[in-house]
Formats: sequence, structure tokens, C-alpha cells
Amino acid sequence: MAGGIFVSFEGIEGCGKSTQLSLLAQELQRRGVKVVTTREPGGTPLGEEIRALLLNPAFSPTPWAELFLLEAARAQLVATVIRPALEEGAWVLADRFSDSSLAYQAGGRGLPWAQVRALNRMATGGLVPHRTLVLTLPVSQALTRARNRASTQASNRRFEDEAEAFHRRVARAFQRLATQEPQRVRLVDGRGSTSQVHARVLKELSELLP
Amino acid sequence: MAGGIFVSFEGIEGCGKSTQLSLLAQELQRRGVKVVTTREPGGTPLGEEIRALLLNPAFSPTPWAELFLLEAARAQLVATVIRPALEEGAWVLADRFSDSSLAYQAGGRGLPWAQVRALNRMATGGLVPHRTLVLTLPVSQALTRARNRASTQASNRRFEDEAEAFHRRVARAFQRLATQEPQRVRLVDGRGSTSQVHARVLKELSELLP
Repeated sequence: MAGGIFVSFEGIEGCGKSTQLSLLAQELQRRGVKVVTTREPGGTPLGEEIRALLLNPAFSPTPWAELFLLEAARAQLVATVIRPALEEGAWVLADRFSDSSLAYQAGGRGLPWAQVRALNRMATGGLVPHRTLVLTLPVSQALTRARNRASTQASNRRFEDEAEAFHRRVARAFQRLATQEPQRVRLVDGRGSTSQVHARVLKELSELLP
Repeated sequence: MAGGIFVSFEGIEGCGKSTQLSLLAQELQRRGVKVVTTREPGGTPLGEEIRALLLNPAFSPTPWAELFLLEAARAQLVATVIRPALEEGAWVLADRFSDSSLAYQAGGRGLPWAQVRALNRMATGGLVPHRTLVLTLPVSQALTRARNRASTQASNRRFEDEAEAFHRRVARAFQRLATQEPQRVRLVDGRGSTSQVHARVLKELSELLP
């Protein structure tokens, strides 16, 4: 990872991570940094096909099939986009990464935490973000946001439509990650205005920023 | 697996396994047995989409991405087709199953054997065929067959077009499996006429047949 910095944004649907990722990318570019942004699942031609399969209600993958599809997209993304960008010294900003599988497939769906971790390691070849920012928002507030957005994009509704209890388990798993790895995983209060949250994001990255 | 019998057919491309699977299915049906046949990757709506991704040269999955896609298709196939059929007492005849990932992704592509085994266990929930028949044929002869067939089906050529050295590694991995698990995994000589090979298949299943 010569030179590059890898930051992932995590959190439940509607937490604001995509907006904050864009703002950070703009700020970094303003400072003259080369930035590569990715999203999961997706981010490669193969990954976008996998994303479409996951979001298509016709296929109803089992929890394990869902996890394997996510790891396939991740393996492709790491090998063909993230590692090359880091090797060129870019900042890589990822909208979801391995921690999402721990939160959603282990925390949310109940697959064994250790096995999801093992698959993450295989898919990433051990690549871990320098910093992971989990945007936190009360579940009910985040879901309201996500559902309003989803009403115009029906294909994105699969995860948004899960029961609220599911999203609470996901949120707890993200908190668990922040407790387990406090140096890497930072909880960022997602309440307030976009620019207030942006300032918190910059603060959590302060010693990494150029 | 109350009552059902699970048999997988394995071997390199062009070894004759699909033909032999069909002949066995006909013979079992003649004997009044309920038979379900599957193929990998595929066999479910999700699995067939995954098959199309794997065979599409536009996507070039990395070895890990390829393995995860295969395991996703397998997880879906086991949960939605194979286990329900076995629970109803059917015979399930599978055109490729977990051993193919050991032979192709570990043996052929060089991924770690133990990790491929671990993923197989997760995808199948520990389901193992009662018997696995590996049809053996000299690699050059099998590849000639497969290539003649592939000339009319361009989309199937990805694996057939691998270098001959790759297919030799795959064949060796199948032999290794037969050595490691001689009770389950049987090498069946694939040379000679279709009916000669069929007779060998029935012999290897003799104590399971109705």
C-alpha cells in the first residue's frame, strides 16, 4: 500500500455515508490529492452485475449465498481497483467494505462472526482500511431517510425493507466493531447538518490528512 | 437426508459425466426411483445467473472472486434444491459439486486446499455426496472432445480454453481426492463406449441401487 490511504465509510442505510464520502472526496481533491471512490457491492463490471443480482427480489439468495456474492464482488474490487489505486499513492474512499459483511451478514442475518471474518480475509487478502468511519444515526431516523430515497429507486429497497429489528442488530454490530478496534473504527455522530457531520469526519481523519 | 441418495459426477471437461449422469437418471427412473438432477454452477435461477457471469469473458473474475461465485451458486443449490429433494427421499444426481472447487480452484488455480474446503463446508452446511464418481480420461482426449463440443457453444469455452497444464493439475486433484476418500470418491474409467462406462457407473453404485 505504498503511499495510499484507505478509508471506508460504514453505517446503516440512510446514515449519510454516501453524502459524506462525496464531501470528503471533494475536500481531498481541493487539497490536490488523487482520490478513488468505490462502492460495495459493485465498483467493477463484475461487481455491478453482482449488485444487480443482490438487489433483484426474484433471486432471494440464502444468507450464505448473499455473503459469498458480496465477497466475490469484494475480491474483484480489491484486486482490480483498490490495491492498484493504493499502490499509486491515491486515497481510496470506500462506500462500505468488509465491516458491512460483519454488520449485515453476521450481525443482521446471524451468520457466525468468525466465519464472516475468515471470508473477509480471503476476499481482501488481508487488506484493512487505515480508518473506518461509522456514521451513527438513530435507526428510526435513518430508515425514514432511506425509505424516502428508496421510493424513487425501487431496486434499492431490499435491505431498506428489512424489519427495524434487523437494522438494530446491524447498528449494534457496527458499535461492537468500534469497541473491538477503537484505533481503526470510529463512530461519527451523523446527526445535524451535512457540514457539521463533514467537520466531524475531517476531525477523525486529522492525523492522516495532507 | 431421510431416505435420499446423493451422487455427484466429477471429472475434467469432456470426460463424459453429463452423458453418464443422464443414463443413470434414466436407469433409476426405469426402476421407479424419483430422480432430481442438478448442474454446477447453476441449477437455480440465481445459480444460472452466476453461471452466465462466470462464462462471460467480459468479467474475468480473480481466482477468489470465481471461487466465491461458485460457492454462492452452491449454497443456493443445496438450500433450495438438493436438501429438499433428499428430504423427500429422491436420488439427487449432481453434475459437479464441491469437489470441483477443490480440483479447479485449489488444484487448477492454486488457491489453498484447506480454505477451499472450509468454503465448501460453509456453502453446503456440511452436506457431502454418498458417492462421487470421477470419470477419468486422458487429458488430451477429453479436451479434444470438449473443444469439438465447445465450437458450437462459444459461451462454454472459458474453462475448456485453459492451458492443458491447468487441466492436468485438475485431473491430479481429482485423483488426490479419490486417494483421500476412497469409500466416497471412485475413479471410473471413462474410456470405451457409453454403455461400457455406464456399466462401470452402476457397478460403483451397486450397494446403493434399489
